[in-house]
Amino acid sequence: MALSQKLKYAVLGVGRMGQRHALNVAYRTPRAELVAIADPKPASLQWATDSLSSSVGLYTDFEQCLAESGADAVLIASETKLHAPMTIAALHAGKHVLVEKPISIDLQTSRDVVEETKKFPDLKVMVGFSRRFDESYREAYKMINTGKLGKPHLIKSATNDQYDPSGFFVSYAGASGGIYIDCGIHDIDCARWLLSSSSSIPNPLKQVTRVFASGHNIRHPELVKDNDVDNAVGVVEFENGGVLMLHLSRTAMHGHDCFAEVFGTDGKVIINGNPQLNRVEIRDVHGVRSESTPTYYERFKDAFVLEVNEFTDAVLDNKPLPVNSLDALEAAKIATALTHSFRSGQPVYFSDEGEPLLV
Amino acid sequence: MALSQKLKYAVLGVGRMGQRHALNVAYRTPRAELVAIADPKPASLQWATDSLSSSVGLYTDFEQCLAESGADAVLIASETKLHAPMTIAALHAGKHVLVEKPISIDLQTSRDVVEETKKFPDLKVMVGFSRRFDESYREAYKMINTGKLGKPHLIKSATNDQYDPSGFFVSYAGASGGIYIDCGIHDIDCARWLLSSSSSIPNPLKQVTRVFASGHNIRHPELVKDNDVDNAVGVVEFENGGVLMLHLSRTAMHGHDCFAEVFGTDGKVIINGNPQLNRVEIRDVHGVRSESTPTYYERFKDAFVLEVNEFTDAVLDNKPLPVNSLDALEAAKIATALTHSFRSGQPVYFSDEGEPLLV
Amino acid sequence: MALSQKLKYAVLGVGRMGQRHALNVAYRTPRAELVAIADPKPASLQWATDSLSSSVGLYTDFEQCLAESGADAVLIASETKLHAPMTIAALHAGKHVLVEKPISIDLQTSRDVVEETKKFPDLKVMVGFSRRFDESYREAYKMINTGKLGKPHLIKSATNDQYDPSGFFVSYAGASGGIYIDCGIHDIDCARWLLSSSSSIPNPLKQVTRVFASGHNIRHPELVKDNDVDNAVGVVEFENGGVLMLHLSRTAMHGHDCFAEVFGTDGKVIINGNPQLNRVEIRDVHGVRSESTPTYYERFKDAFVLEVNEFTDAVLDNKPLPVNSLDALEAAKIATALTHSFRSGQPVYFSDEGEPLLV
Amino acid sequence: MALSQKLKYAVLGVGRMGQRHALNVAYRTPRAELVAIADPKPASLQWATDSLSSSVGLYTDFEQCLAESGADAVLIASETKLHAPMTIAALHAGKHVLVEKPISIDLQTSRDVVEETKKFPDLKVMVGFSRRFDESYREAYKMINTGKLGKPHLIKSATNDQYDPSGFFVSYAGASGGIYIDCGIHDIDCARWLLSSSSSIPNPLKQVTRVFASGHNIRHPELVKDNDVDNAVGVVEFENGGVLMLHLSRTAMHGHDCFAEVFGTDGKVIINGNPQLNRVEIRDVHGVRSESTPTYYERFKDAFVLEVNEFTDAVLDNKPLPVNSLDALEAAKIATALTHSFRSGQPVYFSDEGEPLLV
Repeated sequence: MALSQKLKYAVLGVGRMGQRHALNVAYRTPRAELVAIADPKPASLQWATDSLSSSVGLYTDFEQCLAESGADAVLIASETKLHAPMTIAALHAGKHVLVEKPISIDLQTSRDVVEETKKFPDLKVMVGFSRRFDESYREAYKMINTGKLGKPHLIKSATNDQYDPSGFFVSYAGASGGIYIDCGIHDIDCARWLLSSSSSIPNPLKQVTRVFASGHNIRHPELVKDNDVDNAVGVVEFENGGVLMLHLSRTAMHGHDCFAEVFGTDGKVIINGNPQLNRVEIRDVHGVRSESTPTYYERFKDAFVLEVNEFTDAVLDNKPLPVNSLDALEAAKIATALTHSFRSGQPVYFSDEGEPLLV
Repeated sequence: MALSQKLKYAVLGVGRMGQRHALNVAYRTPRAELVAIADPKPASLQWATDSLSSSVGLYTDFEQCLAESGADAVLIASETKLHAPMTIAALHAGKHVLVEKPISIDLQTSRDVVEETKKFPDLKVMVGFSRRFDESYREAYKMINTGKLGKPHLIKSATNDQYDPSGFFVSYAGASGGIYIDCGIHDIDCARWLLSSSSSIPNPLKQVTRVFASGHNIRHPELVKDNDVDNAVGVVEFENGGVLMLHLSRTAMHGHDCFAEVFGTDGKVIINGNPQLNRVEIRDVHGVRSESTPTYYERFKDAFVLEVNEFTDAVLDNKPLPVNSLDALEAAKIATALTHSFRSGQPVYFSDEGEPLLV
Repeated sequence: MALSQKLKYAVLGVGRMGQRHALNVAYRTPRAELVAIADPKPASLQWATDSLSSSVGLYTDFEQCLAESGADAVLIASETKLHAPMTIAALHAGKHVLVEKPISIDLQTSRDVVEETKKFPDLKVMVGFSRRFDESYREAYKMINTGKLGKPHLIKSATNDQYDPSGFFVSYAGASGGIYIDCGIHDIDCARWLLSSSSSIPNPLKQVTRVFASGHNIRHPELVKDNDVDNAVGVVEFENGGVLMLHLSRTAMHGHDCFAEVFGTDGKVIINGNPQLNRVEIRDVHGVRSESTPTYYERFKDAFVLEVNEFTDAVLDNKPLPVNSLDALEAAKIATALTHSFRSGQPVYFSDEGEPLLV
Repeated sequence: MALSQKLKYAVLGVGRMGQRHALNVAYRTPRAELVAIADPKPASLQWATDSLSSSVGLYTDFEQCLAESGADAVLIASETKLHAPMTIAALHAGKHVLVEKPISIDLQTSRDVVEETKKFPDLKVMVGFSRRFDESYREAYKMINTGKLGKPHLIKSATNDQYDPSGFFVSYAGASGGIYIDCGIHDIDCARWLLSSSSSIPNPLKQVTRVFASGHNIRHPELVKDNDVDNAVGVVEFENGGVLMLHLSRTAMHGHDCFAEVFGTDGKVIINGNPQLNRVEIRDVHGVRSESTPTYYERFKDAFVLEVNEFTDAVLDNKPLPVNSLDALEAAKIATALTHSFRSGQPVYFSDEGEPLLV
């Protein structure tokens, strides 16, 4: 397509994150155009009326939106359980799909979606692994690929959400698939991405050898009823020799602390060692200090824009996607295996076909 | 004006910085719309043809652009000597003006422009003091205004450009007005802004008591012919008791290092203590290290977007400007006084009318 | 004993670390006095002749030193395999013992030594867990004990030695007991110390529930012959609910990087986030950077002095030891269990009697 | 002298800092031996009785101490006004002298002392410019001398003492000579040391061209009666082209913040960018933060030991002093000139003979 052509988007689901996506598509992505949103909630529609151009179509029913909005692509930011059915419906309606992670908290459902995408080879489907679009993760990836770190062999990764006294996420725990799936999927995806980049994978089917997990509850003992925890660690051994050490938490007091340390034979890089909100350092009676990003959004807000821009480019210019649904499926397998290891108390091994042996 | 109405912009001058402004107006500013650019240079027009929508009007003559483009506002990013005449021409053509700093390297010309703006009370004129739109300077300002730092009394400010072996800026030194005007105007403006915010100014005419300057050449002895230096320091004493310590340099080796330390009675803040390019820290044979922003642009790129957004809001909603041409004139007086102090070897005092005594 | 009385020390083994200890005892520890050293190596004796007062007795045979030197206490800094026999011989000679870690690479030998110490209730035996004497670890401990971090629940700890192209440690691998024992014993001891301090231990016999380990070789494939690795990770689950995540490495490129992150319910502390050598930051073409401590010695040199001072005080004033041989035994059990987990590929559980089940 | 011979010291004045010096000489300096202290205050003598070996002679009269103690050297840590007479008396008693800075708050007295030292060429006299013995300043000096920073041309230096609500220093202001002399003498000495190291000094008599100073009171308006301020800035232009920008303060809220930034043509170094107390970083509701050294003593405690060690070596081995009384005199001239500039409101120039023209 020509440079001046724009990709028409409908955003499905305009809750908190969907609103941000809608604004990005509307105002910050040169080759993308917001033509519609769909959300059944009155508050969401009211927000859209207040905040978006009157030319944007408003739908309460996503299927009607798919049928009538004239969108070329959808950005799915609805609640997790709708990710899979919306993706499939969008494909059948002939739309390209950018869907928030995870495809599903259920591994088989994720697998079914991936199978379905194969029937639509002309449609692009990308899962929103936003960290892949962050300039700092990109810089680390570039350093690995240009050999500046030697061979990467170990990643320590942490996603520590700020403690929320309201207990919001707890009420949501049952639907989230648990901390490894809900919170760890980005860490797992980045480990796959950064460790594989300069390593040969002897058996492309089998990417993981073994995982081990351990979790404990610090502030949310009520999570036990959902078999979930507020602090979880894990070790993932990859077939190519790389290792991921993982720490997920819902109880950080200073802010959202999303950390990665990538070890190569010739050096290491640390991403976001200090999760600072801005370039201000304060020196007062509390010491020498800086404020942290309160949520993942302040940390990755530019990445969400680049994500849409690159997906748009991939569709308009028919280029390969930076991350595809198979990547999402592999990450889901690992997160599911970690969850199983945590619950069973045993390491989980992977078969030669690349499937976790959930015994 | 209604929310959905957009402010139509023409960008005058699309050299390196003008191109960035044009792209911001075109793609990153929801209520702004790029309708035209003007630049006499073929390369600039070619860039515009390649990079902008075909709906954007291209002009080689800025006066024709003012007359025909249908713009409501102009963003002037031409070479410095055209800032003043373009501003005046735009006002006479009924356009709002957002002009890059400085208005002029000549104090009287700046004064003339400010006088001219008074004849057009319905037109907004803002000078692009980009640091005022940076989130970190804003955070410091907010802390001062909410009393978190007590009374501000001292600012140490440094603008240290990365050393450019090509000598580009040297060739440009004659036209730049010298390092205090070219490079120090932002530091001076920020000092006025941050020091005044919680202090009473007893005599609004006289804002400065005295300035003192000293400079030396480290890598560019040829600057002597233009009475300029590549490293300059200065002290500005404000009438409200605040002090600015200033260091300007063209010879930083690690990148663009733009630093501010604001001292209040109850604490201090440091802005950009480490001029890091991103959130990556490298640990290898060179130590524990980070890369720096190479130029002011990587440091302030989001500020340039906010600058246009806020100017646009001020025009569309008829709100006060965050910074106006009088601010630019006051900063120019101080920069001129520092230049005079450096050249004369004497402190420069200010009259009760607020004019530097350039004896 | 009166303040002015000094504790007389013999240092057994004056290789690199023993020399440092001897100098500390001689010159930096007010209540300690160096009266003798013992070492069979001519180079060591020559060093002692050159560097110590002529009043210090020099022995090639440690047993003769025990019998004749008049020392009240010994500081054992010999090669690891002599730690146990020297400790036992010193006790039988009536000397207090400060012995470098580990007591032994063999768990049963460590246990035998601990049993032997019980026969000498009037003699103090301390194992040199130097990190317990470091001001930063002390500060973290103090914060935990005063409740500033809430309840501690997770420690991420890393001991990453600088890569030594000479392969020195590789030649030594067989005698070291492997990376978990040789390099991880400090991390394990600190985790026991910092996690237990504000937690009740329900079953004092059983301190650990389970350990899991994984290792890989990056630069030293030849370690395989000793069943060892140059990079190792591990997870230790303590009975009190605390968790240790461990990373040990011989391949850091920037220096000795010894890191700890202690998570409490109300906050966390990071110890040595930047392993800087001094307070100098360099900004040049390599970026904004600092040099790292090259070895553990630069990192902990003051801790080694405090260690001797506190041991001396404990003996002279008959006060409890800051760390005792039972602590060393518990750490040895965990290190041995991690080694077994790494080699067997299985988690290792602990019995109700607190013994690792090395099946 | 032979290695085993020790230099016998008397410490004159054992107030807070003198006590620290006495303990260092007694216990941390291998070749130094504390034989006596002198102090007229009963509390000081009581401290000495409680804290020092009974072999240390205690004197209320320093002249008796000089006559009877058998010391080879004195360390003078008394109140400032006694520095000069004690130095002269010690020289006449045949003692080497290590005296705390400044020699005197009066320039002529300092000059007289320096003249007096010339009569005793066999006796060493060193002024305690402790920063010259700090490992980080040393590292910066080494980098300059080995050419790693190119030619040094600018130093920004700050000594900011923690605000003391008790007003202790205010009561002391009259006797201190004012902030430039009391607090700035170290910054001035370091600038002389670091800027001269790789520069030729065309006229050794005239080291300074011009100074300019400006001060203001933030929390201590009562200082006006002593012609003093609690915040002071200054610029010193050296004859070799180097420049010092100085900031002295009594009102830092977070701790003692002693900062230096040394600019060379090929890079710069920052010393103590974060005045951290230890290697602990806290992350809690107050942000990501570290504690600062509360006073100069925590910052420089190892430097005070090295200072005595190097002075001892210089005497015992008859080696040149690292810093001598002429250095102290030159620093005093500059501090006096800054004080004059602040009070007169004018720059102060230096004569060709190197004297400040205090007109």
